[in-house]
Order: sequence, then structure tokens, then C-alpha cells
Amino acid sequence: MSTIHDFPIFAAGEWIKGNPLPVINPYDGSIVGNAFLADDTVYEMAVIKAKESQTKMALLSSHDKYTALMHIASRLREELETLSLILSREAAKPLKYARAEVQRSIQTFIVAAEESKRLPREYIALDWTPIGEKREGLIKYFPSGIVAGISPFNFPLNLAVHKIAPAIAAGCPIVLKPASSTPLSSLFLAKIIAETALPKGAVSILPMNRDFADRMVTDTRFSLLSFTGSPEVGWPMKNKAGKKKTVLELGGNAAVIISSSVKVEEVIPKCIQGAFAYQGQICIHAQRFFVHEKHMPVFLDMFLEATSRLVIGAPDDDKTDFTCMIDNKNAERVEEWIHQAESEGAEILMRPNRAGNLVHPTVIVNARKGMNVYDEEVFGPVITVTPFSDFDEAVLMVNDSRFGLQAGVFTDSQTEIDKAFHELEVGSVILNDVPTLRFDHMPYGGVKDSGLGREGVKYAMMDMLEPRILVK
Amino acid sequence: MSTIHDFPIFAAGEWIKGNPLPVINPYDGSIVGNAFLADDTVYEMAVIKAKESQTKMALLSSHDKYTALMHIASRLREELETLSLILSREAAKPLKYARAEVQRSIQTFIVAAEESKRLPREYIALDWTPIGEKREGLIKYFPSGIVAGISPFNFPLNLAVHKIAPAIAAGCPIVLKPASSTPLSSLFLAKIIAETALPKGAVSILPMNRDFADRMVTDTRFSLLSFTGSPEVGWPMKNKAGKKKTVLELGGNAAVIISSSVKVEEVIPKCIQGAFAYQGQICIHAQRFFVHEKHMPVFLDMFLEATSRLVIGAPDDDKTDFTCMIDNKNAERVEEWIHQAESEGAEILMRPNRAGNLVHPTVIVNARKGMNVYDEEVFGPVITVTPFSDFDEAVLMVNDSRFGLQAGVFTDSQTEIDKAFHELEVGSVILNDVPTLRFDHMPYGGVKDSGLGREGVKYAMMDMLEPRILVK
Amino acid sequence: MSTIHDFPIFAAGEWIKGNPLPVINPYDGSIVGNAFLADDTVYEMAVIKAKESQTKMALLSSHDKYTALMHIASRLREELETLSLILSREAAKPLKYARAEVQRSIQTFIVAAEESKRLPREYIALDWTPIGEKREGLIKYFPSGIVAGISPFNFPLNLAVHKIAPAIAAGCPIVLKPASSTPLSSLFLAKIIAETALPKGAVSILPMNRDFADRMVTDTRFSLLSFTGSPEVGWPMKNKAGKKKTVLELGGNAAVIISSSVKVEEVIPKCIQGAFAYQGQICIHAQRFFVHEKHMPVFLDMFLEATSRLVIGAPDDDKTDFTCMIDNKNAERVEEWIHQAESEGAEILMRPNRAGNLVHPTVIVNARKGMNVYDEEVFGPVITVTPFSDFDEAVLMVNDSRFGLQAGVFTDSQTEIDKAFHELEVGSVILNDVPTLRFDHMPYGGVKDSGLGREGVKYAMMDMLEPRILVK
Amino acid sequence: MSTIHDFPIFAAGEWIKGNPLPVINPYDGSIVGNAFLADDTVYEMAVIKAKESQTKMALLSSHDKYTALMHIASRLREELETLSLILSREAAKPLKYARAEVQRSIQTFIVAAEESKRLPREYIALDWTPIGEKREGLIKYFPSGIVAGISPFNFPLNLAVHKIAPAIAAGCPIVLKPASSTPLSSLFLAKIIAETALPKGAVSILPMNRDFADRMVTDTRFSLLSFTGSPEVGWPMKNKAGKKKTVLELGGNAAVIISSSVKVEEVIPKCIQGAFAYQGQICIHAQRFFVHEKHMPVFLDMFLEATSRLVIGAPDDDKTDFTCMIDNKNAERVEEWIHQAESEGAEILMRPNRAGNLVHPTVIVNARKGMNVYDEEVFGPVITVTPFSDFDEAVLMVNDSRFGLQAGVFTDSQTEIDKAFHELEVGSVILNDVPTLRFDHMPYGGVKDSGLGREGVKYAMMDMLEPRILVK
Repeated sequence: MSTIHDFPIFAAGEWIKGNPLPVINPYDGSIVGNAFLADDTVYEMAVIKAKESQTKMALLSSHDKYTALMHIASRLREELETLSLILSREAAKPLKYARAEVQRSIQTFIVAAEESKRLPREYIALDWTPIGEKREGLIKYFPSGIVAGISPFNFPLNLAVHKIAPAIAAGCPIVLKPASSTPLSSLFLAKIIAETALPKGAVSILPMNRDFADRMVTDTRFSLLSFTGSPEVGWPMKNKAGKKKTVLELGGNAAVIISSSVKVEEVIPKCIQGAFAYQGQICIHAQRFFVHEKHMPVFLDMFLEATSRLVIGAPDDDKTDFTCMIDNKNAERVEEWIHQAESEGAEILMRPNRAGNLVHPTVIVNARKGMNVYDEEVFGPVITVTPFSDFDEAVLMVNDSRFGLQAGVFTDSQTEIDKAFHELEVGSVILNDVPTLRFDHMPYGGVKDSGLGREGVKYAMMDMLEPRILVK
Repeated sequence: MSTIHDFPIFAAGEWIKGNPLPVINPYDGSIVGNAFLADDTVYEMAVIKAKESQTKMALLSSHDKYTALMHIASRLREELETLSLILSREAAKPLKYARAEVQRSIQTFIVAAEESKRLPREYIALDWTPIGEKREGLIKYFPSGIVAGISPFNFPLNLAVHKIAPAIAAGCPIVLKPASSTPLSSLFLAKIIAETALPKGAVSILPMNRDFADRMVTDTRFSLLSFTGSPEVGWPMKNKAGKKKTVLELGGNAAVIISSSVKVEEVIPKCIQGAFAYQGQICIHAQRFFVHEKHMPVFLDMFLEATSRLVIGAPDDDKTDFTCMIDNKNAERVEEWIHQAESEGAEILMRPNRAGNLVHPTVIVNARKGMNVYDEEVFGPVITVTPFSDFDEAVLMVNDSRFGLQAGVFTDSQTEIDKAFHELEVGSVILNDVPTLRFDHMPYGGVKDSGLGREGVKYAMMDMLEPRILVK
Repeated sequence: MSTIHDFPIFAAGEWIKGNPLPVINPYDGSIVGNAFLADDTVYEMAVIKAKESQTKMALLSSHDKYTALMHIASRLREELETLSLILSREAAKPLKYARAEVQRSIQTFIVAAEESKRLPREYIALDWTPIGEKREGLIKYFPSGIVAGISPFNFPLNLAVHKIAPAIAAGCPIVLKPASSTPLSSLFLAKIIAETALPKGAVSILPMNRDFADRMVTDTRFSLLSFTGSPEVGWPMKNKAGKKKTVLELGGNAAVIISSSVKVEEVIPKCIQGAFAYQGQICIHAQRFFVHEKHMPVFLDMFLEATSRLVIGAPDDDKTDFTCMIDNKNAERVEEWIHQAESEGAEILMRPNRAGNLVHPTVIVNARKGMNVYDEEVFGPVITVTPFSDFDEAVLMVNDSRFGLQAGVFTDSQTEIDKAFHELEVGSVILNDVPTLRFDHMPYGGVKDSGLGREGVKYAMMDMLEPRILVK
Repeated sequence: MSTIHDFPIFAAGEWIKGNPLPVINPYDGSIVGNAFLADDTVYEMAVIKAKESQTKMALLSSHDKYTALMHIASRLREELETLSLILSREAAKPLKYARAEVQRSIQTFIVAAEESKRLPREYIALDWTPIGEKREGLIKYFPSGIVAGISPFNFPLNLAVHKIAPAIAAGCPIVLKPASSTPLSSLFLAKIIAETALPKGAVSILPMNRDFADRMVTDTRFSLLSFTGSPEVGWPMKNKAGKKKTVLELGGNAAVIISSSVKVEEVIPKCIQGAFAYQGQICIHAQRFFVHEKHMPVFLDMFLEATSRLVIGAPDDDKTDFTCMIDNKNAERVEEWIHQAESEGAEILMRPNRAGNLVHPTVIVNARKGMNVYDEEVFGPVITVTPFSDFDEAVLMVNDSRFGLQAGVFTDSQTEIDKAFHELEVGSVILNDVPTLRFDHMPYGGVKDSGLGREGVKYAMMDMLEPRILVK
């Protein structure tokens, strides 16, 4: 990619250039591509065309939707390498993780294609009382209107796809605002979407400045706001959304429990990945490790050793395991939080030497409530490790947080599994793996401050659909 | 009932008397019973105990919940006559409709009992991609917290039951505020609930003044606000609700279409009931009639004749078909609206002679957009009748409204049925009956300004439950 | 019950007396009641009336079926003590187990009542290819015809109920042949069924001699043969059944695995019950115990000690744990099998002293393949105990059998649970309990020689229903 | 295709040649390709390898199965033209219908791929009674063993695919015997199957002589016999099948009702296709037309006129609508049946002039019970047309048959639709189309003499799966 490519705005089937938005590789400051910012006019056009395409979208057969979605999946497979490189560079995501993300987006489109043929339909008896004699009810789910999607920088492709693919499958037009720092991969996707026979207006991908996010929230023409991002931005949106529904996919300080019943050496590779994949900039980053006290010394030894072997380098290098954070601002914030923890008594086992936006993998022990690295979403390559003596105690410590997205539990005990599943206040309990695991067709989302509602294709579709019953 | 009975507040298993709230029979001004207003202290106690009972409720077996719910159903059957009289008198509801409401509440509890054993559970393959090899997911739905319920005057028992029964079945404590004008039937129910082994704190029924409604909306201890009432009160609540979910069951100006394919004489009895049952004070009151032009003269003749035969009398008289409205204020409003329609060119076929809160059945032709009786929810014994020449035209007129709750369609044509079901913007299309029909286990709720979400036991339960996945 | 009561044949709503069939208490030889044998004429009448009632049954609303089934459940509750005594005496079943059986029958009817409202219905998109544009499919399940039921002596009430209740719920008439030795409890049930508004012809309960079983198998008027009994009788029926479907609920030599991960003292009470409840005359009698070698000595000690405390006495005595077998013939067979095992090298830890049809609890070690007590269904109070060193080995030994009904596994290891569930060739794996556990709404039935198809109310109903699709 | 290709036997991944079986084009007697007959040795090898691959198949992830099935679908799309020509020639099927069949097979594999990820799984509460406190049940469906498939000549590809694709999706090895007259298209498919990573032994396609069909029926190594063919061959198999399950997809004399409510000119094209597509050699061939008397003259005029415009020619000619039957024997039988009808009073409106195996489209009026063309499955280009005056009468005439596969009903009346759906004794009622319509994912199969069980991918899979419950 010696020449720098333009990635125009994709507004209701039109390719538009506006104010330039050069997209910078956070690792080396090079320009990855030129995007553009949509303005008022473009935004209005996209929303109006979305509204106009609403009936057409609602009337698409499942065959139409399946064909379009499978075409996109198939073309993404062809463009895997190109797109992975763009993604890797715009987001400073190690190439292997970028590839994995594109693979997951392919899967998300396939799942959506299949679910487009399987919209829920119920047919129920209504003769449960004499007044319903001979009556039956047919319940179908109709597209509820147009969707406003706002997606974050960290999975710039797949978290956009988790709004776009279900919207197409549900028959809803969507206007998506990607993160301004990483719009290129979703704009690349737009080119593929444009190849399909979907109505113009079905999908718009509009890089916009922050103000437009608020505007989407209050715009009464949308019937759903689907936001993925930080709790601080997300929650206030809910109470400005007017009559529309709101889905919030926010973050957390996800925990891992390593029970006495497991062999600690077997869990290390997964723990390393949960802790430091994409420099911890993942909603379900494994941030708080709770390790049975008998395992504590071995765990720390092995974990630190494995951490020291991570290859740090350029994101678009095949060998790279770990690279810089998205920007200096975040790197500085993470450094501050580490200092805060240290100053309040925590011990930093691997001392980070921040160099610009490169924050090295950091392991903290003796962290506790009151420290940001323990209480808040660190969204960086920092973990805390806390010993426990009893499984119940570990569960209590995990729950003692305002967040509740996912939790990982390593154990072979059915008793502990039951306890974890029934008592952990989270959206998902991952058995024998880190909380950083997500399958694209599973219900995904948090409780408490971590969010509202679920994504995961068919679960995301449910919020885009409105039931209607025919009482026959 | 020669002596006037006290109906104390039911707060977390305690019977409490506060400021007296005498409940007046709207028909004759007699006192039906003495209720009491909960104050701050009582409210706080109820919410705190609800919170305390949350874990106990969540741990109830389906057997526990089934037993409690079936006990309530069975006892309501025993108390049918007593409770119907109370309900009839407090709400000025003709006794036969009061009995039907109690019967429906029995059914609502039976349905909840059965659904308590059938909480949704999914078990899914996660090995759709190599990374999920050998993995499966178990999705269970856990009670999401405590429910704030606000119920209206018009179905003072069954619309409270539609919040209480699902809450018990879902394992959620509930604090319910009944309408201040008609709290007695739900407080009578409280006595039966108190007989069960449900934890104290599971259910509180607190008559309170209006301010407390706002307080419930913003109280962060609730995880769900379930409101049934008017759009004007309901919608603003949504944006004050903070992080909790909101379900709004509001009203509308429900329509009936009478197609050319039916025999008009066969539809009259149902139309009369849809129009004037409980003096039209029903969310799904059949307000706007669209009649194929060829049927128009016969329809009006037969409808007016049948209307003239309605027996007007005291609510607690077995023979009464029709009685007064809930209060003078509403009767005056309805009268004003009729006058407005007349002054703007509508014709009043049956001229109402309001006497206090008694508004006679009123039939209006030549009503149109711009008149309150056509555009707004009249919530009184007034209907409009509009001819149409083509089924498509009728569908457009029904949809040309800011409301969308239910619609009735009389037709035998499969083509018209398909059109009605796919194009009418409502929550429910009732075939060959008025929109006033509702079965207690069907999904019930509106679109557009008519509401958000669905009730209907298992549908109501879904909003009280939070999914959690165990990734095995 | 000083006078001996008559229990006439229940043939399509008529009460008929035929050749007397005195029913004898196997414990003391007293007459429990007088039943009668149906002859050709009665059989023909029952089948003809069943056929005649087929349309009426098919047209019953779910409300009709629910009401009838709940009436039966409610009346059984009222008659619990009377019916338990009859059952206890006719079957020589300890009273506490007889009561449990009646309780389960009540539950079976309740489940059927609820399922009658929830017949499966699917509504699917058919526009997956262009040729299906705009098409949808409604799949309903219609009663398939009349059911021939044959039920065994050992659960004379509930195993009859597992055919009758689903048949009513599915809308199918049923003709049931109870075991000739224990027809009274099902005929008692018939009196309650006769109180309902079900059409005459819906249910017939006909004690008949063996030849009639064959006749039912080949009678082309039935659309389903549902047989519960021994493999030797059941399997040949399948190939004589003509065009009708066949469900076979047969027996086995169910196994229990006690893994190294459990506390052996905690499993003893359940093991005793699995081994000796109703003298082992249960299809899912825990016959083969596989005990981890480290637990073996303690297990045997505690098990033998607990066995020695079983109270042996008259079936209708409240204190009795254990009593005689159903008849001498079976007692002799069991004795012979024990002798065979002993002569071939097994060790009999508790030596049985048969007295007529009383066979004492018998524990055998060193049993192995080739011995009837290990290979065949012993259907008596005999168990074998075999040590194992490795969980895999235990699974192999369980599977090394021509039967596969249920298996119990005591373990807390998720790894062992997964292995057991995925590898044990049975219909049901019961975790931390004996295989003798059954819930009336779970799918129940065996693989290999243990049967074909599943019962368990809704599962039994599926075989009584025939899908039909409306392609719209 | 100037050279004649060999199509070896596909036995457990091996390509084997045995006794030659030249496959003849029924139209011109040319050789389409050389197949071979499997003998004892080959059959045994295939069954043994199928058995050996059983565990491997059962352990395939859904990803493995999806990948294999989608590969097959994708390769069939590439080979569409080649395969359509082979199919057209071996079966004398007009090329456009041959193409449609290949398209449907592609769709069948896609559906199977998707269903392989969605095997049914249930997770249920077991605490409906106190004895089940804290217990839950997980129900999974495991492959039941190896499948014996026997498929007919008329859809030589897609009716084989309807056994092979579900077997792969369910994880069951399958041994398929195609019709000896038309084995080439399924052997062509075998080449594509061989490209996948499925275990050898997963699929065998063995042309064999008739005796082997009986052998498959009685072979105890199979757990399911899935037969598609004639009732005369199918039904006796059921009672020889031993312990295995049997699915029978047989034929019928499918009916069409044309009600007074439709415009007769609009139904003609579909009726022509239902009557004469593939010369009526289709299980759901529209054989008996029941036409409202008011439509009768116009219907006959238009139908005969449209029939006369059918292009008769060589099967592999793009323009051909109609060609010869599969062989002389069947052509002679059809001719005889026509003569029988005529001799017994029916009127032959289009007189067929049989020339060898070419039987011209034949329309018969005044046919009635007792004539083979009305009572039996004609499986040739012959239809009967019977007037009716009342819809009820038409339903009775349709039902007055020993068959019940599908029925087509042209009407716009909801009343008639309800009657048709609830009263027609068939597997499928097709609204506003001929009974000849089938979608590959819908449940398909007949009642009465038309068969036992259902195919349609997920429905076919259910018979290949065995439920097992884990009681936790």
C-alpha cells in the first residue's frame, strides 16, 4: 500500500467525500488511508434515504437477505489479507488478531444470513378459555424501523458488523457511525455491501465527529439506538433517546477465577491471551485474576515468564504479539492508574516503561477496592492478581464491582461450576477459559453498569424486530 | 356489605393503615371501602424488604412458585362474587364485566403458574467455528431485580395481576401502585397473596398519591418499571428511568374494519361490545369504525338500534350493560370532544345527554383527522363511523394515527387478511372481532405512541428476566 | 375395606361385568377386589366407540382437555389414601411407594393438562429460494387416531396414566389393557375419568387375557401401539404391528457408577432405594453397581448395614420398606438366577432365604458377564457390585450390555459428567442419584434392547400426533 | 459427451467396478454412462466401514459437518450443467426440470449445513415437584447409528440427497441404494462427496439389484431404514425391519381443489405443471382435479388448450416440456389403466397415442371410485377432472382415498382454507398451488397408505437422532 487510498463516506449507496479525516497508524504515525467526515447534509440524506428504503427492506424475502449476506461473507473471505492489513494498521492491532477479527466478521455475516431465514414466528392456541374457542394466534416479528449504530475503535470491523449484519437480516435500514480513529475497515466493508442488491439506503457508514452521536441519540426517525463503547458515554444516551429503544454494549473489569481443582500450568496460555491480547483494549479484557492461594506462587512465576516472551513489535508484522495502545491519551491514563495503585500499596510485578503510546504488559498484586486498576475498566495491558482461599470468597470478590460483563472460571468441579453460573452477576460465565472469549452467535452483553440488552446476531435482531399477533 | 370495610396497605407482608383514602362508588357516591395512602416510611420499608427478598425469590423452585400462583387462582375462584362486587362498585363497572375481569385474573394466575415451570432456557452448539471446538452454551434467564408496577383504574384487578403474576413467576419482588380511585380489588387480592408461602417482601400493594409514581420511576433500586396508563403520563417516564428497563402499556384509538366480504348483521353484537363495554374506558376500546360503503346504511341502522337496547343502570346490577364513567372530569372532557367534533362538521347520530358522569353511548359520522374523537384516545363511550370503498383505503386510514395498539378486521378474504396483518401498524390484528379482544397469554402491547414492550405473562416475564450464558 | 368391591370393566363410558377376575394381594392371598375380563364383544364395542369418538376428541378445545385433565388430577388428590391402599394391596407395593405413585399420577395429569394447551405448532418461512417467494408454512400436529395401550403390573396406575393422560391431551381415544394381576387402580381411575365431560369412547380400560394383547397389536383400527413391559414380549410386537407406529418401553439392567470424587457415605441412602424399592420390580431398578475400588470396602459395609435395617412387612403397613414379590413364579426365577451366579463363582453377601414370593434383599459380588443377574433384567431385589479403577473402565462395563435404559452416576467432576453423558448408551444419565429416578415430564425410554421411542407426556404425545403443513 | 463414462460404485470412499450396469436413456436408447452393480463383498465392506466410522461421525463438530455440506453445495453449483444433462438423460427428464432438481439438491445441502449447527437441544426444569428440587435436565440428540437409504428413479438426485444430507448433518453414516435405472446422478454426487474431509465410511452409494433392498431391510447393523418408493414395496418392509426404525416416503393420487372463489384462468399454468411435469412420474403428481362446477367448462377448455401447447421432445433439449416415460412397462400399465377407465364409462378428452414409452398427456372426465386412474397412483401423465358444487363435497372426495400425501387448494376464502387444512387427510395442504409443490426444508410425507414419518432435512434428521437426557 505505497499510495494512500481514499475511503469515501458511504451514504445510502453514494460515495461522498467531505472534510478529510486522515487515519493514522498509532504505531508509526503513518497515514493508513484518507477517510472523510460526513456533515449535516450527508447525514440528513443518509437518514432520509434509510427511511425511504424501510418498506423495501421490510419486503425483502429471506432469499434476498441470505444472498446479500452470504455475498458479503464470501467477498470478505477473498479480501481477508487486504482488509486485515488495513485493520491492523488503523487500530494498531497485531496482524494475527486482525485476521481473527476479519474471520469473525465473516462468521457474523454467515450467522446473520442463516438467521434471516429463521426470524422468530410463533403460532399459539388461544382457546385456553371458552371465550377463545376456535381461536389461534400467529405472532410474527416485523422490522421496527431504522437503526442508529455507533461502534468503537477497538474492533472496528466486527463490532460494526454486529450491528450491520443483524440489521440486514432483520430487514432494518441502518446508519452507522464508526469510531473516528478507525473508520477504514468498516468503509472497506461498505464497498462490498455496495456490490449487493440491497436497496440503496439500507446501509450508510458515516464517519462523523462526536456531536453527531448525540444527534443520532435524539433523532426521532430512528427506532433503535445500538451503542457499543464506554459506560460513561453510553448510559446518559439512554435517557435522551426519547421513544426509541436503546441497546448498550459497554465495558467492565472482567474477572478470572482459577480454582484449586485445576492444573495451573494448563491455564497460563489462555490467561496470557486474555490479559494482553490487543493490549487489553477489549471490553472483555481479563483484568482481575483471582487465583486459589495454593496456586499463587506457581501462577505468578509462570505467568510472568510467559509474559516476558511476548513479542513486541509493529502491528502489521506477523510475529508481533503485542504493540502500542490506540493513543497517547489512553497510555497516559493507564500509566497514571498504575502509579495510583502503587502509591496506595499495590505491588507492580512487571514495571511498565511507557514509551509514548506503548505501555508494556503490567502485572499488579495487592490491588484492592479503591484503586482504579481494580475498580474501573483499565482498557489497557494491566492485570491484577488476587489470591483466595475459598471459592465462595472468589465469587464475592468478582461480584463486588459495579460491572458485570463476562467472567472466566477454571475448574473441574460441578459444584463450583453451578455456583459460578448461578451467582456470578455477569452476562456470561466462561468455563475453563478467560472472559475474553466470545462466539459471534452467542448472546453477548452485560448487566449492572456493563450494559443493557444483548447482541449476538439473533439476539441483536430481536431488538430490531417488533412482534405483531394475528388473532385468527 | 352494609358495614364499610377497611382495606389496609399491603407492604411486604404487613398490613398498615395510613392516611385514609375512602373509595367512592362513581355511580352513587357511596363509600365502597376504606383504603389508606402509603407514606415515605411505608414506601421505603416496602422497597427495602423487596430488595431483601430478592435472593429468596430467585431461589424459589418452580414448584414453590406454581403452588403459590395456583393457590391464588383457586382462592380467587372462591371469592369470585365478593370480589366482583367490590370491583364493580369501585370502578363503576357493570357486574357482568367485573365478573369477566375476575375470571380473567384467575386465568392470568394459572398461566403464570404454568409459565413459572417453563422459564426459557437454551442450550446451543458453540462449535460453529474451529475456535469453539467441543464448546456448548447454556443460556438461562435469571430474575433481574425488583419491579416497580403502576396500574390504572379501568381494569383495577387484571392489569395489576398482569404485573404481579409474571413477577412471581419470574422470581422478582414487585412493588405495585394501584390507581388511587380503584385500589380495593388489588388490596383484596393482597389478602389472598398473603396466604401463600411467598417470602414477605415479594409483593407490596401501596395506594399512594401521584408524586410517588415519579419516585418509583427514578428509584435506582428497581430494575424494571412497568407502567400501564395514558401516553401522556407514560412516555416522559421512559427518559427519567435511569438504568432500569421500561415497559409502557398505553392507549390508542383502536380501529375496526368491516370489509365487503362479511355479513354485516353478524358483526353487530361484537361491535356494540367493542364500542360500549365499560363505557369505552378500555385501552383497546373500538373507537374508529371503518365500514365498507355498501354496508354503511345497514350497519348504522342496526348498530343504533342495538345501542338503544343497552340497559343503563347501576354497575352492581346484574342486568346493567352500561353505566356512568369513572368521574365527572372525564365525562366533561368527553362531552367537550363531542362538541368539538360537531362544531367542526361531524354529525352526532346518538346525541349524548350527559348527566354528571353518565355519558350516553355516542355515535359520530363524518368525523375526520383534526377532531379529538378521531385522533386522540377518547376513553369514553364514543365511536366514529367512516365509510370506505376499497380495503387498501381502510388500511391507510387506520394507520394514519399516532397510535397503534390493536385493530379488528371483519373479513373472509385471505388476501385482505394478509394485507391487514402485514400492513396495519399495531401490536395485534384481531380477525373477525373488535380490537377490544385480549387473551391473557397472548403478547399484548402497542407500537408508535401506544407503548413499548409487551405484556401477556410470558412476554411480561421476559422483561423481568436477564439472560446469562454458561460457555462450557 | 371389609367388603370386597367390584371393579367393572370401563368400556367406552359403560360399566360392564364379564368373567370374574378376582385380584389377589400377593402378600397374604386375600382378595383385594373383583375385576372382570372383557371378551370379544366388549373389546369390539370399546374399539368401535373409540373410533366413533375420534372426531369429537380431535375437535376438543384445549380448554375442554385442560378441564378434564385437571379434574382428574384434583379428584386423585382427594382419593389419594383410598387409591394408595388399593394399589398397595393389589401390587404388594409398600404403602409409602404406593402413595408416591399416586402423587406421580396426579402430576402426570397436571403436566398433560398443561401440555394440552401447548401442542407443537411451527410457522416457518418458505421463501428460502425464489420459488417460495411470499410463501410461509404453518405446521400443526393433529391427533393421529386411536391408541392401543398395554401397561404392566409394577406401576399399575402411573404407567397406565402415562398412556391415558397424553392420549387425552393429544385428542386421541385410547383403549388400555392393564396387567391382569393389578387392574384395580386403573379401574379406580376410570371412575374418575367417567366424571369428566370427555366423549364416551375416549377412554376404555379393559382387563383382558393375554391373547387380546396380540389382537390389539394387529388390529388395523389403531394408529399407535404403546406397550410397556418386558423386552421379550415387546420386540416381537413391533414386526406384527402393520402400518401403525409402535412405542416400546421395556426394561434393562440399569447401572450405577460411584466415582472416586464422591463421599461414599452420602450415596448410601439413594443406593438402597434404587436397589430395593418395590423389591426391585422396576424397569429402572439399580441392578449393577460399579464402585471405585477405593470406596469398595466402605461401600459394601455401609450398604449391607443399611440393607439389614430395611423393615420387611405387609405392603399396606406404613412402616414397611420391603415386602414380597408379585408372585411365586418370579420369586423362583430370581432364586434360580442367584443360584446360577453362585455356582459360577459369584459371592452372595446377603443370602436370600426365599419364603414363597418373599425374596430377601440380595447383594452379589464377583458377578460377571454370562450370569443372568448381571446380563439380564433381574426384576427382583438383587444387585451386583463390581469395583473399577478408572472411570473409563466403568463406562465400558456399563455399556457392555444389550440394554440401555438409564444409568446413575455419582461424581462431582465435570470431565466425568461429560464422559458419562456423551458415552453411556442409555436414554438417561442421572447425576448423583440412582437410575431409578424418573420425573414424569422428562423424556423417558431406552435404547438398544430397552425400547423404542420416549414417553414423558409431551414426548408420548408426539407419537400420537401427526404433523400437517399448510403451505400459504 | 461423445465417450461413455464409467461411474464406479462408491463404497466407503473406494471406487469399485463390479458387474456392469449400463444406464440407458429411455428416450433414444443410447447409453448415458456405465455404472456397476455392487455384490456381497462390496456391500459387506460398505456396511462394515460405515459401522467403523460411526464414532468418528458422531464426534464431528458442527463446523466439520457444515464445511463438508457447504462444499458439496458449492461444487454442485459449479457442476450444474454437467449434472443436469446426466440427470436429464438417465431419467428422461426435460432439461429444465433436471436443472431445477439440481438446484433443489444444492438447497437441500445448504439447509443440511445450517441444520447441522442447530441439532435440537432442550434444557428443562425438573423441579416441578419437591422430589426434583434443584434438578434440571439437558436433552441432547445423538446420532442413532447407520442409515440404510433406498431411493427411487424419479428424482434420482434430490431424493437421494434427502437421505444423504440429513445423515451427514446428523452425524450418521449412510449406505444408499439408488434406483438401478438412474444411478448416475447420485454417483456423480459421490465424486463431490469424496472431495470432503468426511470419514471414509460416512457415505456409500451402491447400485445393487433388488434382492439387496430386502437385505438392507433386515440387516441388524442399520438403525434406520429410509425408503422412498411405491407403497407396494414400502409397507411390507416395515414389518421385516426388526428393531430398526422405518421411514416410508410413498406415493398417492394427489388432489387439487379449485374453489368457486378463484379466477380460473389464473390457475391453469400451475395446473398444467402439476399434471404433466416429468410426465406425471412424481409422488405428488396432481392426479385428481376437483373443479367447482361453475368453472368446469372454462377450466377444461383452457386446460386442454394449454396442454396442446406442451412441447414434446428429447429430454436434453432446452425447449422440451414433455417426453417419454421411464420405460415401456410403465407406459403399458398407464395405457391399460386409461382403457379400463374408458371401458367403465369415463371419457378421455385427450386421447393418448402411446408410442413405446411415450404416453401423451391425458385428461379424463367422469372418472370415479373403482377406476385405477382415480383410486391408484397413476405415476404417469394422466389426470381426472371432477366437478363439485360445494366445498365440503370436494373435501370428502379428496379424503375418499387410501392415500394422503399432499393436496392443492385454490381459494381466497379463509373459511375454506380452515376447512381444507383441518379436514384434508394429507401431510400437506398447498394453498393456491398444485400438490406438486415441495420446499426442501418443509416437513414432507404422507398419512394413510402414503407413508410413515417425514423428510425435509431437519425432520429427516430427527429420525436419525436419539434423545438422551442428563438429569443434573
